[in-house]
Amino acid sequence: MKVAGVPYRTLWTADGAVRVIDQSRLPFEFVTVDLRSLDDAARAIRTMVVRGAPLIGATAAHGLALAVREDPSDRSIEAASQALRATRPTAHNLAWALDRLRSALGTVAPAARADAAFREAAAICDEDVAQCRAIGEHGAAILRRLARPNPGRPLNVLTHCNAGWLACVDWGTALAPVYLAHDEGLALHVWVDETRPRNQGASLTAFELAAHGVPHTVIADNLGGHLMQQGRVDVVIVGSDRTTAAADVCNKVGTYLKALAAFDNGVPFYAALPASTIDWSIADGARIPIEERPARELTHLTGRTDGGELATVRVVPAGSPVLNLAFDVTPARLVTGLITERGTCPATRAGLLGLYPERRQDR
Amino acid sequence: MKVAGVPYRTLWTADGAVRVIDQSRLPFEFVTVDLRSLDDAARAIRTMVVRGAPLIGATAAHGLALAVREDPSDRSIEAASQALRATRPTAHNLAWALDRLRSALGTVAPAARADAAFREAAAICDEDVAQCRAIGEHGAAILRRLARPNPGRPLNVLTHCNAGWLACVDWGTALAPVYLAHDEGLALHVWVDETRPRNQGASLTAFELAAHGVPHTVIADNLGGHLMQQGRVDVVIVGSDRTTAAADVCNKVGTYLKALAAFDNGVPFYAALPASTIDWSIADGARIPIEERPARELTHLTGRTDGGELATVRVVPAGSPVLNLAFDVTPARLVTGLITERGTCPATRAGLLGLYPERRQDR
Repeated sequence: MKVAGVPYRTLWTADGAVRVIDQSRLPFEFVTVDLRSLDDAARAIRTMVVRGAPLIGATAAHGLALAVREDPSDRSIEAASQALRATRPTAHNLAWALDRLRSALGTVAPAARADAAFREAAAICDEDVAQCRAIGEHGAAILRRLARPNPGRPLNVLTHCNAGWLACVDWGTALAPVYLAHDEGLALHVWVDETRPRNQGASLTAFELAAHGVPHTVIADNLGGHLMQQGRVDVVIVGSDRTTAAADVCNKVGTYLKALAAFDNGVPFYAALPASTIDWSIADGARIPIEERPARELTHLTGRTDGGELATVRVVPAGSPVLNLAFDVTPARLVTGLITERGTCPATRAGLLGLYPERRQDR
Repeated sequence: MKVAGVPYRTLWTADGAVRVIDQSRLPFEFVTVDLRSLDDAARAIRTMVVRGAPLIGATAAHGLALAVREDPSDRSIEAASQALRATRPTAHNLAWALDRLRSALGTVAPAARADAAFREAAAICDEDVAQCRAIGEHGAAILRRLARPNPGRPLNVLTHCNAGWLACVDWGTALAPVYLAHDEGLALHVWVDETRPRNQGASLTAFELAAHGVPHTVIADNLGGHLMQQGRVDVVIVGSDRTTAAADVCNKVGTYLKALAAFDNGVPFYAALPASTIDWSIADGARIPIEERPARELTHLTGRTDGGELATVRVVPAGSPVLNLAFDVTPARLVTGLITERGTCPATRAGLLGLYPERRQDR
């Protein structure tokens, strides 16, 4: 997507490095950072310079390629995989991308492994772009259908966290339908959940939508329920960090609360996701490990002062304990449907197997 | 309650002024401010130097007394009432306190009105303290009952916003049961919702609980649903800014989402309130006017830098529109019970009339 008129992906290779947009500095500064080693890549994932399930997978694949370039031995690949896998415990794409690279490299002679690894990592990126675009097309069809009864007014979409192009390589998952429908001329307005504690909605989703010219309004995470009660939300679309075989959706903490409110008010609630986020080995979402992140993400906030400086302030009293869990699980019963690169399906095991029949033997 | 060992109320008279704790500067600075005129009082309410339904009522009563001291005419009383009533549209205690003072002054000669007004305002404060203490006793009985099955571990209470002593004259509404049960030796732990956008949980509730020594943990508003799914919340207690005759509860925005999660997980959900928050003229909560507050409350945050300075930073991109509605309505069907100064009742019209039979003719 474009930033100040220039088309970008969130990750590309340049000058022998893996270049990414430093998302920890958005929306205040748009800068890129070069990853030149396994350590650089692992740190970028852990500190959320890059974030979003698909982009975490793409970055991990490139991190493994950087390690292979340094040392193509089996032992090196194993150690690098373990280091990358430990960066974020919840995102399923991370393990998926690493497994894919390892299996692609298994039969390749050590001397040829670095090239093969970068090729496979690039393929992951290109496929992600194609998949997100396909998710966008399937989702845009839903938005057009929902807009039909009220041609006179914009369709109100609510989203939580950032599942836009910044979370992927391009297009996004939850926001891809919004971008495609907007580009086709459908009148849309997006309610952007601030998404505490890291404010990915206020800082990343609002930045993305503004850069692309999509009308939107930033709201506190607390407000979505009231807006749904008032009929001011037509549809909720979120991403997914891990989706179980029974269609439970693990996504940014707070998603479950929005799903409850959507269900209570008859508002359709969709999760948009590429197949790589589906964990066919787990049915019950309660079994997904939930990442605990540093307290400082909740106790401190960084922003710009009226004087234009960046400053970090503490907003929780110094002595008060804090718990910062990053995800929650929305049970499939609250999800209207899943939007994948292969189409839309009910949030059930049968629905998923209808789109992915090759997984029937997985159980 | 005590701050650094010294007992305080949130409002008292001293040196001919009405002295209040400046809550907009908590938890960073504990300072008092003197209100010497109607304008001072109206500004203190509007800018949330004082906040919380009962304290708003008490401050409005004293603001009217300050106006009467200046000019005891009927016209002055009428104008002052209108000015105070316009400060916050949602809180029901505001209108209740003003009506009470006006009716107390109606038969008093102008020369005696100032004394009568301050007497009535002081009575409102003393009654609030007694009512909050009674709410605390009725609520503590519920906490003791809920704790009984698991004598070995602390009872986990979740609360949203600040309905503690800082929201009242003393004791609090939602937190009064916590303070009383804690003082009696019941092991308790409170999950404190940060409460965006004004962070009353992180700044006021955490401050209160720490000052009184009650174990607590500050969490993002987004986390409560997950904690309930995991069985880590035993009961939710919130305050109420306005309660309808049919027991719909209008409280800080985000309360409805917690009520949905409590209902979905079988967690008891109580609202604690004095009778003065009950609006007998409204049955349907959807008819309560919801206050829209300045965008800056969401876009900017004030905190302390690592260097110890207070600083305000912008956390939402400058071009992004914002909507900041301060309250939502939790339908009575999601509320386990109401805890009032007269006891606990089901969240129904019949339940309320059981406690307040003198209101049977009101409909």
